[in-house]
Amino acid sequence: MTGQTIFFKNKPRVIAGYSIVGPKEAAGPLDPYFHKRLRKDDFGQKSYEKAECKLHMSAISGAIIAAGLAPKDVDVNIGGDLLNQIITSSFSARELDIPFVGMYSACSTFGQALIVGAALIDGGYISRAACSTSSHFSTAERQYRYPLELGTQMTPTSQWTVTGAGCTLLGKEGGNVCVESATVGKVVDFGVSDANNMGAAMAPAAAKTVLQHLKDTGRDVSYYDYIVTGDLGVYGSRLFLELLQSDGVNAAEKHKDCGEMIFDKKQRCPQGGSGAGCSSVVFNSYFLHQMRAGSVKRLLLVPTGALLSKLSSLQGETIPGIANAVSFAVEDVC
Amino acid sequence: MTGQTIFFKNKPRVIAGYSIVGPKEAAGPLDPYFHKRLRKDDFGQKSYEKAECKLHMSAISGAIIAAGLAPKDVDVNIGGDLLNQIITSSFSARELDIPFVGMYSACSTFGQALIVGAALIDGGYISRAACSTSSHFSTAERQYRYPLELGTQMTPTSQWTVTGAGCTLLGKEGGNVCVESATVGKVVDFGVSDANNMGAAMAPAAAKTVLQHLKDTGRDVSYYDYIVTGDLGVYGSRLFLELLQSDGVNAAEKHKDCGEMIFDKKQRCPQGGSGAGCSSVVFNSYFLHQMRAGSVKRLLLVPTGALLSKLSSLQGETIPGIANAVSFAVEDVC
Repeated sequence: MTGQTIFFKNKPRVIAGYSIVGPKEAAGPLDPYFHKRLRKDDFGQKSYEKAECKLHMSAISGAIIAAGLAPKDVDVNIGGDLLNQIITSSFSARELDIPFVGMYSACSTFGQALIVGAALIDGGYISRAACSTSSHFSTAERQYRYPLELGTQMTPTSQWTVTGAGCTLLGKEGGNVCVESATVGKVVDFGVSDANNMGAAMAPAAAKTVLQHLKDTGRDVSYYDYIVTGDLGVYGSRLFLELLQSDGVNAAEKHKDCGEMIFDKKQRCPQGGSGAGCSSVVFNSYFLHQMRAGSVKRLLLVPTGALLSKLSSLQGETIPGIANAVSFAVEDVC
Repeated sequence: MTGQTIFFKNKPRVIAGYSIVGPKEAAGPLDPYFHKRLRKDDFGQKSYEKAECKLHMSAISGAIIAAGLAPKDVDVNIGGDLLNQIITSSFSARELDIPFVGMYSACSTFGQALIVGAALIDGGYISRAACSTSSHFSTAERQYRYPLELGTQMTPTSQWTVTGAGCTLLGKEGGNVCVESATVGKVVDFGVSDANNMGAAMAPAAAKTVLQHLKDTGRDVSYYDYIVTGDLGVYGSRLFLELLQSDGVNAAEKHKDCGEMIFDKKQRCPQGGSGAGCSSVVFNSYFLHQMRAGSVKRLLLVPTGALLSKLSSLQGETIPGIANAVSFAVEDVC
């Protein structure tokens, strides 16, 4: 480890990626890139929790099928979600009969899952890992905020939890995209205590991880075609760029935020999308598509998480953030 | 990976272990082995959640200090706990300034943390990992069951959540105990739906993981001095042994359960202890002490988890279980 960064010697490959989203996400600008869209966000299930579980399972199965494999060909499912005790991921793993490693790092979980999956493959311990995350607007609202029936108004700084699940199937070989390095994030607290302004809570963590990544790798932002944060949203992204700028790093031209990208302004989501499924559906659709096509050669994915619970907010705790960075490259620059 | 089992080529070492427990645990039979005991289970904090966080942090610091190191010498903290959104572990990581990987696998989290930590070290990605878990009786009761003030009676099959935190500091070298192999568990559901009988929910997962481990390694139970399950409790342990027996494996003489060991019958905990801190405090005290002293040479630690949430039980879901197995050996048999 150099600083906080791991370099993968054998460059694990992205064998397949899969994304499945709800109707609101499918009505957004990234619609053409998603692999599957729900007509109704209950997915024909009796509860939104069961719907999210089916979403999560569908993303994993989708990636496995896209790779022409079967669940028995996957050594480990590394998964996580936002629900208490990550029941979505573990109940999904119950159906799939794949050894399971449960992760929680809020909306940064996807980054953490990729890091552990890539390291297990690169070290020669396993051949394939399904790295999966999900979120669901209605399960998140019920758990973190208010009953939907109450019709509570969103604050101007709040983000809309993405209904969707994404899975990246990593393996020793296959495909033209590799995982090149990764920076494990630290928990950073700038004292933000407004649970409706998670972009502000996560921006410092994202900036810190990106600066650390650049330092550890000796790169500057020009090295990457895109630096893609998870779900900072509109305001959080501005803060992120300002924080980088105050350290002399101008990333404005390279930066994209999955939360900002997934919804259109007309869709009335004040700051954009969020949730553990946000970065995984956007990466596995739009960005992976571009890397497969060769139009993006080097990408730094930085999923960002706000580490709060309903209880921690009620007890007056501030909201620490975390961000993990994973660097992808296409074959000829691997 | 052979079946579900990883073999560590370079045999990562247990550099140090640390355990800190509450007053009830300190009144139990393992008292002489614990590193620190609280006089009061609020640890001088304003809430039990803050107390658990301080416990978690103390376990990590304790292990680092015991190894004669500083937090900057530790590359990653891999931690988890039972609270929603694992706030204990992430708030503890906020104070420690060590890169953080958040885990959730209920009371099997400690096993999962050890597997990921050992693989990252063995693969040459990091030099040292602090693998930590915790639980607290009062935070768990508040979150999963009833307010303490209600004085609800425990059912005969229920277990008492251990107040305690344990941390194992793994590294490339140091100490006479190594991590030799590990079996990643699958999520197993035998249809148990009684949230007060978690031993029964976890026993099938424990049996399945142990059988898989023996198959993958070509060993029989006589290979190990102890097969140590996490927190099956009295009844769950009996089920575990019966399930193994039905597959022709007699583990009765080798089996110990951390949940059964931590409390005395006089302490009126119907089935013994449980919680993400249970296996970590017992392993890092009693068992690590014996391995250090050379009286135990080969040990298979099998932390067990019940994958439920309050919501999943209310929605009528059954309780799937999971168990991860980690094999430790002392130097001369590494």
